[in-house]
Amino acid sequence: MADFSIGVDIGGTNTKFGIVNKDGQIVKQDRLLTNKHEAAQDFIDELHSKLMPMINEAGGLDKFTGIGAGAPNGNYYTGNIEYAANLKWRGIIPFAKMVSEKFGLKVKLTNDANAAAMGEMMYGCAKGMKHFIVITLGTGVGSGIVIDGKIVLGHDGFAGELGHTIIRPGGRLHKGTGIRGVLESYASATGVRETAIELLTENPRIESLLRDYSINDLITSQTVYECATKGDKIANDVFEFTGQILGEALANFVMFSSPEAIILFGGLTNAGDLIMHPTRQAMEANLVQVFRNKVKLLFSDLKEADAAILGASALILDPAK
Amino acid sequence: MADFSIGVDIGGTNTKFGIVNKDGQIVKQDRLLTNKHEAAQDFIDELHSKLMPMINEAGGLDKFTGIGAGAPNGNYYTGNIEYAANLKWRGIIPFAKMVSEKFGLKVKLTNDANAAAMGEMMYGCAKGMKHFIVITLGTGVGSGIVIDGKIVLGHDGFAGELGHTIIRPGGRLHKGTGIRGVLESYASATGVRETAIELLTENPRIESLLRDYSINDLITSQTVYECATKGDKIANDVFEFTGQILGEALANFVMFSSPEAIILFGGLTNAGDLIMHPTRQAMEANLVQVFRNKVKLLFSDLKEADAAILGASALILDPAK
Repeated sequence: MADFSIGVDIGGTNTKFGIVNKDGQIVKQDRLLTNKHEAAQDFIDELHSKLMPMINEAGGLDKFTGIGAGAPNGNYYTGNIEYAANLKWRGIIPFAKMVSEKFGLKVKLTNDANAAAMGEMMYGCAKGMKHFIVITLGTGVGSGIVIDGKIVLGHDGFAGELGHTIIRPGGRLHKGTGIRGVLESYASATGVRETAIELLTENPRIESLLRDYSINDLITSQTVYECATKGDKIANDVFEFTGQILGEALANFVMFSSPEAIILFGGLTNAGDLIMHPTRQAMEANLVQVFRNKVKLLFSDLKEADAAILGASALILDPAK
Repeated sequence: MADFSIGVDIGGTNTKFGIVNKDGQIVKQDRLLTNKHEAAQDFIDELHSKLMPMINEAGGLDKFTGIGAGAPNGNYYTGNIEYAANLKWRGIIPFAKMVSEKFGLKVKLTNDANAAAMGEMMYGCAKGMKHFIVITLGTGVGSGIVIDGKIVLGHDGFAGELGHTIIRPGGRLHKGTGIRGVLESYASATGVRETAIELLTENPRIESLLRDYSINDLITSQTVYECATKGDKIANDVFEFTGQILGEALANFVMFSSPEAIILFGGLTNAGDLIMHPTRQAMEANLVQVFRNKVKLLFSDLKEADAAILGASALILDPAK
């Protein structure tokens, strides 16, 4: 076994990557902007130019087992990224093949949220669990589902697109897919921003600290969080609303696979109890009795970047996944 | 191995049971009314009094491996029926233990829809499939989910309660659970009846053959079907509405586990294309691109009673399930 592997976590906004040693430690990491490049090849070229000095510093390519990558709509079976709604790269991208050709290393690809779930299972709060779901709340909403200790891939490798499940039929339009009322349109950073703008517009007479920020660019899930902690009513309502919808969706997921835990992961979890409380309440209120007060709802305790990088790197170590 | 096993399928209305031989043939079957008995013990006593003559005719208890039973909220791990919304038996019923004590045979219990899924996998249109979902559309809506060739049980044995997932938040009240807007309140025989009554009441000026039936007892999913085949507008609208909601829910399930097929099973499937067309259309319209035009939506081709009896009887043969 070689000394190192590489984990790459491709998100809608940032791509994080790192060199992982045999003990599961990230010895070196960096990032780049995912959507800076219109073409996947240009992205891979930049990734290569940033990684090669790190690889050489660690002793060169011979010391590396390969590269594991997680990406939206990344398919483990084919190595392709297919029709990812949150990426600029359109159609079917033979990502694993392209990266492998560029680096001369073995490459394994999976859904970015599956990579996070692998990270949680190997190094995070799902250690020892056989049944859990990771929900990533970032630019989009992703999910990695583990049943009987294995990532659920489905018959074609695309299982676990829970961000695209419908929870408000006829509701908000998802610009990437054209489908209305899906979880991602509400429980993502983008969704929180949109909810804030809606509540501000619908309630012109309610004062809000958020009105000091420009709607065009400064109202973000982060500013909504900051205003909420200062007691701002509309900002707090945004998290209540988001948690209600997220909780209902989580109840649906529990009734599918009856997991021991649901682990929330990603930027939105920075809001802490502001998002956790209404989410837990709505989830419990919508579960039938056999599931009530049983399912642990947790925040990931891994550093966000770490879980995904570690999980992605583990792809290359585990021949089964 | 003994010559026979027994399969019992407990539905919200009818319980069907049969003696199954080594070749997977039902050599004898009968039924009883599930909710005739307030107490589970009385139900088991009637089951016993009906089964014993059949057992004796087949050569006596020594010829039998055991009894496999499927029931709403039946739990494979514990052998209990717990808080089943559609049964009169309240709380936690140690069903497998009670039946075993009555018959002196080994008893295995699971969710009724899981039993149907086992039946489809062993004898029906899911033969050879590793990833599929069976949705039972009867008095209630149940589900049996198969991933990698195994029934999904979840960490506590209660996985696969898709009839209780929310698809119209704030919608119809489910009297059994107190939860609003769940699939079962729309896509069951009861739901179809309720939709018909709603549409008749909301559209007093639209003529309908359904107005010839008494709302109190004669409007059923069967009469709605009969009127629809005669071209009745409201009756047809009932199936459009039902299919729309069912299709949206199926899209959600596809995005969870990416199955090769979804198999519809139970009374409502008698409506044929009337329910299949709007369901398929709504499902496809709500799937993100990677899932579109991939998932087979099928009607079970097993006789309804047979699939569940065979599936339940198979529980006792398969030590893993």
